Amino acid sequence: ALAIRRCRRQPQDLYPLMTTPPVLPIAPDDIDAARKRIAPFVSVTPIMTSQVLDERFGVALHFKCENFQKIGAFKARGAHNAVFSLTDAEASRGVITHSSGNHAAALALAARNRGIPAYVVMPSNSSPAKIASVRRLGGIITFCEPATAAREATAEAVRAKTGAALVHPFDDPRVIAGQGTCAREFLEQVPTLDGLYAPLGGGGLLAGTAIAARENQPRLRVFGIEPAGADDGFRSFQTGQRQPQPHPHTIADGLRTAVGEVNFLILRSLVSDIFTVEEASIVAAMRLIWEVLKIVVEPSSAVVLAALLEGKRPADCRRLGLILSGGNVDLDALPWMVKA
Amino acid sequence: ALAIRRCRRQPQDLYPLMTTPPVLPIAPDDIDAARKRIAPFVSVTPIMTSQVLDERFGVALHFKCENFQKIGAFKARGAHNAVFSLTDAEASRGVITHSSGNHAAALALAARNRGIPAYVVMPSNSSPAKIASVRRLGGIITFCEPATAAREATAEAVRAKTGAALVHPFDDPRVIAGQGTCAREFLEQVPTLDGLYAPLGGGGLLAGTAIAARENQPRLRVFGIEPAGADDGFRSFQTGQRQPQPHPHTIADGLRTAVGEVNFLILRSLVSDIFTVEEASIVAAMRLIWEVLKIVVEPSSAVVLAALLEGKRPADCRRLGLILSGGNVDLDALPWMVKA
Repeated sequence: ALAIRRCRRQPQDLYPLMTTPPVLPIAPDDIDAARKRIAPFVSVTPIMTSQVLDERFGVALHFKCENFQKIGAFKARGAHNAVFSLTDAEASRGVITHSSGNHAAALALAARNRGIPAYVVMPSNSSPAKIASVRRLGGIITFCEPATAAREATAEAVRAKTGAALVHPFDDPRVIAGQGTCAREFLEQVPTLDGLYAPLGGGGLLAGTAIAARENQPRLRVFGIEPAGADDGFRSFQTGQRQPQPHPHTIADGLRTAVGEVNFLILRSLVSDIFTVEEASIVAAMRLIWEVLKIVVEPSSAVVLAALLEGKRPADCRRLGLILSGGNVDLDALPWMVKA
Repeated sequence: ALAIRRCRRQPQDLYPLMTTPPVLPIAPDDIDAARKRIAPFVSVTPIMTSQVLDERFGVALHFKCENFQKIGAFKARGAHNAVFSLTDAEASRGVITHSSGNHAAALALAARNRGIPAYVVMPSNSSPAKIASVRRLGGIITFCEPATAAREATAEAVRAKTGAALVHPFDDPRVIAGQGTCAREFLEQVPTLDGLYAPLGGGGLLAGTAIAARENQPRLRVFGIEPAGADDGFRSFQTGQRQPQPHPHTIADGLRTAVGEVNFLILRSLVSDIFTVEEASIVAAMRLIWEVLKIVVEPSSAVVLAALLEGKRPADCRRLGLILSGGNVDLDALPWMVKA
């Protein structure tokens, strides 16, 4: 049975007369299936806790360390689920995506594990480290101009030529189900959580998290955390209509994209609230995680702790789970070294 | 039964006619006792592995993550064992040490846990972060000139005034036994290791490691890794006589001290070899650990991987355990950001 927990800010009249839950494109069973499918290829990531942080924030915090995941980010989960969901016929001509970030490396790894080619369209201004990472994993790179239209056109051209199967970075039920395995695992490791914070960019991780947590609601509420400089998710959630994100401006490079269509459908129904966080809080939270937890996380991960730095948490949450989404960061350009 | 495994470089004639092992000031039983004593106060730290690093170095590597230990370093183990070994009468007037590093914070924490004062003599040029850390843990700081003689004189003056019990950072059997709990734990977590690398500074960690591993020798060999710029341990091991370290020059700030007397007695008998590593290798190894393992470690930790970068390993070791000793680092002054 699905229980929808409404948040404070969510329009209370979104489904005013709804007596049956909305039909969502992914069910908890899909996450269980994804988990079995990807288990040979991804890590069960550890949970970290810290007395220092618990005392500071007055709440029991549990950090799910996806920075320790294969390729250094949760994206390995969704990519593997998508690639291993393909039939042999579908997979035979490879997979393709356009991405400058963690999804590109994740898809390259998943394709290598399945023994098929991965075509990756990357903007010509992608960081050398990310290009090298995709190459090392055997990805076949096509460069394009760094604009969305150029990326999509180039990807379509490569797809038409190769017949490869497209795996979207987030707006794909197989990818969402794969990302949901993170929260499913988390809730087994720490069954008593009453709140879950996940970063919100395209929405794959948040949507998967919400579905994984769905049977535990309303006791367990799910929150999305988004940079104020890329707050389309927040605005969409407020208005009930998907809003564009024309000019994202945030250091959290994984969270600049607008929320996907499928993802929005899910999070609109299952997420309790979206919190936005300022850039300074993201940098401070990232540094705090490095200093106290002694782990390397990227800015996109740090938004979940940034929300606590800004005091953004439900007063009745006592045991919060924070998903640290990844740890791929340029060690030569750490945000606290760069002048504003 | 003690079996002494001689290393390639160790003088083969050190104990040429020895049929009974030398009597050492610490036995494996002392480490078991230490473990029980400190268990309520320290963490069982996790082991990390990495396919990427295993493939690169052609050996199965296991990293013992003492950067996740209380106060961010293995020093919490020895300090707690020393403080909780004191009788109530001995403990009643507190403990004292001189240290600019992790031992100061460790002793402050251990004293707080026992409910007694910790007096810490720190050089006036200690980093603000380290001073703050000792203060936060309740340590009572006396500043002194940054020279060994001044430190010892100031410590003696405070000791005479307070009647506090001295806890030396490394040259103390209780401290050594405490540090040995790290390797004991490690060998339970990964029983099949055939080599153990530990950083070598004052020698507390290495001596404790060697004693903990003693019953597993000769199958399991223990190696000390030392910066070439502070190689008194290496020279002492070669000559069989403890050598001074007048002008240490290394980024690995935890490894600048000369090996202690008790420590040398132990490692001379039980350690298979000492390897030295260059500064550039330490920085490269530190960065590699951050990038691949996604954890924050300090330069002193990185020496163990630096040895592998320099190809320093016995050809017949297949499963190496590397002790990452700590993760307290100034994030504003990372070595790869600083011009040489």
